[in-house]
Amino acid sequence: MSSPRKLTSQDLIKWDADGLVVGVIQDSKTQQVLMVGYFSKDSLKITQDTGFVTFWSRSRKEIWVKGETSGNNFKVVDIHFDCDGDALLILVTPIGPACHTGAVTCFDGQIN
Amino acid sequence: MSSPRKLTSQDLIKWDADGLVVGVIQDSKTQQVLMVGYFSKDSLKITQDTGFVTFWSRSRKEIWVKGETSGNNFKVVDIHFDCDGDALLILVTPIGPACHTGAVTCFDGQIN
Repeated sequence: MSSPRKLTSQDLIKWDADGLVVGVIQDSKTQQVLMVGYFSKDSLKITQDTGFVTFWSRSRKEIWVKGETSGNNFKVVDIHFDCDGDALLILVTPIGPACHTGAVTCFDGQIN
Repeated sequence: MSSPRKLTSQDLIKWDADGLVVGVIQDSKTQQVLMVGYFSKDSLKITQDTGFVTFWSRSRKEIWVKGETSGNNFKVVDIHFDCDGDALLILVTPIGPACHTGAVTCFDGQIN
């Protein structure tokens, strides 16, 4: 992506009614889309500070460091946001398979 | 993606409280992530039936055929769903730039 707009804060993100923003995780090398997850302000800050993707788990209602149990982390390469500020695209280096099933990507199903 | 699970219906999709599912749009050729949008059951059916991506506009609360005004459609190549059925990944051939700004992708912003 050439000459992207730069932000130094989370100010331009439009957080939804639950205080979350959706994020697409993409392998920076293979460009495969690995999964979709949600971020709270705190989990995004942790992601930026640590360099490892940290979601907000909507089911468990808690901060979720991806790979905390499995070791299959996502190392952050770049964080992009979209034109209306309500979605993130996070380019990562995956450490191991993305999916809890052991698959490379969570998008392993196909609709005819 | 090798040997994906196949579905012939929308049965395995987990629709959210608003009856929507989030979808990631990816260029099937360049693998660039172009945008994120939402689908209702009806808009997904139209997408499948017509072969052109048709969202549910959350702001206008109506069916939104991508490119209806601009002509910048997304021609569907494949529709994938994720391991917990609450996100779609739609591989497309974009007809023109994805973004209303004229950019190739809506993800033109970057956070430091």
